[in-house]
Amino acid sequence: MSVAEAASVEPRYARRAERMKASEIRELLKILDRPEVISFAGGIPDPSLFPASEFAGAYARILATPGSAATALQYSVSEGFGPLREWIAQRMGAEGALATAENIVVTCGSQQGLDFLGKLFLSAGDTALVGAPTYLGALQAFSAYEPRYDTLAGERGNRTPRSYREEADAAGGEVKLAYVVPDFANPTGETMTRAARLELLTLADELEIPVLEDAAYRSLRFEGEPTPSLQALDAQRKGSLDASRVVYLGTFSKTIAPGLRIGWICASRALIRRLVLVMQASSLNVSVINQQAMLDLAEACEAGLVRAAIACYRAKRDAMLAALEAHMPKSVRWTRPEGGLFVWATLPEGVSGAALLPRAVSEAKVAFVPGGAFHHDGSGANTIRLSYSLPSEDEIAQGVRRLASLLR
Amino acid sequence: MSVAEAASVEPRYARRAERMKASEIRELLKILDRPEVISFAGGIPDPSLFPASEFAGAYARILATPGSAATALQYSVSEGFGPLREWIAQRMGAEGALATAENIVVTCGSQQGLDFLGKLFLSAGDTALVGAPTYLGALQAFSAYEPRYDTLAGERGNRTPRSYREEADAAGGEVKLAYVVPDFANPTGETMTRAARLELLTLADELEIPVLEDAAYRSLRFEGEPTPSLQALDAQRKGSLDASRVVYLGTFSKTIAPGLRIGWICASRALIRRLVLVMQASSLNVSVINQQAMLDLAEACEAGLVRAAIACYRAKRDAMLAALEAHMPKSVRWTRPEGGLFVWATLPEGVSGAALLPRAVSEAKVAFVPGGAFHHDGSGANTIRLSYSLPSEDEIAQGVRRLASLLR
Repeated sequence: MSVAEAASVEPRYARRAERMKASEIRELLKILDRPEVISFAGGIPDPSLFPASEFAGAYARILATPGSAATALQYSVSEGFGPLREWIAQRMGAEGALATAENIVVTCGSQQGLDFLGKLFLSAGDTALVGAPTYLGALQAFSAYEPRYDTLAGERGNRTPRSYREEADAAGGEVKLAYVVPDFANPTGETMTRAARLELLTLADELEIPVLEDAAYRSLRFEGEPTPSLQALDAQRKGSLDASRVVYLGTFSKTIAPGLRIGWICASRALIRRLVLVMQASSLNVSVINQQAMLDLAEACEAGLVRAAIACYRAKRDAMLAALEAHMPKSVRWTRPEGGLFVWATLPEGVSGAALLPRAVSEAKVAFVPGGAFHHDGSGANTIRLSYSLPSEDEIAQGVRRLASLLR
Repeated sequence: MSVAEAASVEPRYARRAERMKASEIRELLKILDRPEVISFAGGIPDPSLFPASEFAGAYARILATPGSAATALQYSVSEGFGPLREWIAQRMGAEGALATAENIVVTCGSQQGLDFLGKLFLSAGDTALVGAPTYLGALQAFSAYEPRYDTLAGERGNRTPRSYREEADAAGGEVKLAYVVPDFANPTGETMTRAARLELLTLADELEIPVLEDAAYRSLRFEGEPTPSLQALDAQRKGSLDASRVVYLGTFSKTIAPGLRIGWICASRALIRRLVLVMQASSLNVSVINQQAMLDLAEACEAGLVRAAIACYRAKRDAMLAALEAHMPKSVRWTRPEGGLFVWATLPEGVSGAALLPRAVSEAKVAFVPGGAFHHDGSGANTIRLSYSLPSEDEIAQGVRRLASLLR
């Protein structure tokens, strides 16, 4: 085969595919999967919390009955397994936004929900409003649709709706959505106040855009009173969920188990109908046997599993905060999350998280995610994300101590 | 709430979303889910073939061992469960293209593969070459990325590479891919000859485009000798799978069960690396418990399940062909598939399949899919797709007789 032929085999990807670069961080962290390294990197659940025997019972029951086995192993409707949609709608209702099954579409984890919403809302050159920092996976999902990003200014900001709109115009598109993780955010662990939520809803009303509320960690509150979800606040203002512009992304991944890949979107029926078409075109339906098994678990023991997860992660957060307090130099600051899986640390100006990582791994045998990865705008070089979900309390204490030794 | 406010809640969807219209056919067929109607509509597997007790054993084994349970319920790598990739690579190798696990990415059914390939290759205005007719779900997946379509002319056609290229240029894009179902096609049941395959590969070489080979039905051959897959033919010509431009979409949905949503793409390692990034951004990974269970079934009994499916569908095809022969007027023609799930019938010129459907349902209590739905170019009005996979042989005989009575 000639060189010319070999070159012609490499296909010409879509323009948008050029943006889908491997996150160097993820590549680096993959290499780090070594037992001697204490990892504060991935925000993944502690597998000791997984209800394996309950799932074994659920799959056995589903497959033992000919009727439910035939349903479990067959194609299914794109909107999701009816009884699971009902259960999710009830659970959403308990949060304050009166939902029916028709307000729910089941997704392959909330990551698929983010992809679908990008597909539905973003054309090339449009603007997505996100935090800086924000969840890396949301940036990856949206970037496939070639938006530009603008930064949600938050409570202390003074950006006007008009300034967002003008900059979007100048870039040749429109502001099409805002995305936030309001509770125990990935990556900062911070929670939006009620005032900040209302301010965001007002901005969204003025810009006439949907607000994507990523509620992945919302159930994992260790202390303090919950702030109403953006969706509940907006549905209350507008009179109904169907009139709300908030799109709520939920998941069982952080409270029951991520391996079944079951999440959901709760939104107006009009939007759900569009999302069902996207699902039909994108993967037909989420595995129905997994939807049945998840419903079984959710009905039988969701409350208990959430309590167990809260107890486990609260103790780990306490271990991390205590170790940070004990060992970190004064020049390092960090957040004190009331829930979720993450602490966000700010290193002294000029100290790069990305440059620290290889040293941390080789010298201190500790891993984390450099904060720059979570910033669409290239900022945040002196920040790092520390997840306490996977290591034990002892490992957390030890890992923070070792990391601190590099920073002194 | 004022009318103006209500209107502002309806979001402005992405330009591409406007193309994602509900297929009226699917909406109609949903309504048809009535026991008194004999359905030749959906191409869905006969659930009597599903190995429910074997799956029960698989899930029980996976969840009984702490190590495999922790893997089963956790996040996993985006490329797919390693041992399943190995198994698929071996199976692909047996077909003639020497594949390794690195040539495989596991997808949520082959529908997700189609979506990912559309995302990777198609920018707005680009050209996708497809058959007319072709698989409706492929058109739905690709249309989200706003291509135009041009028709693969097939063996009898006389389109030159240059004419495809010039028309793509005129439409403001490039020819970016060709998509075919070469074996027992959905919707026609027809199989491409070896000569037609070689001709398509030559065209693709001249256009420098990937060929998407949808092999969903390939294992279900009832008789005759298999024609080599496009991928095997191309890998042979080019010297290796990594040098081939064919992207093979496989699935367990038609041979084991669709409910777990497990398919795969086999392609050059360079392309697989890109697709893994798309998976990461789109749904992180396919449910790993389902990948483990499918591997268990595939290893233990794939060959036997394929044999059973062939025996079942061959008998049903025979029943359908016999009934068509016995009852249809001379003016109706149909294909005689050597495998798969579909017969494609051509009605007399001027008789509309879409107009026939409501009469067929209400008067004859029979459903099918009007052929127009499978044509990107609005042609095929006098065609219909008849699937024999779900009804029993008796129902097939009865249904065809009733349908024929409307056509006489």
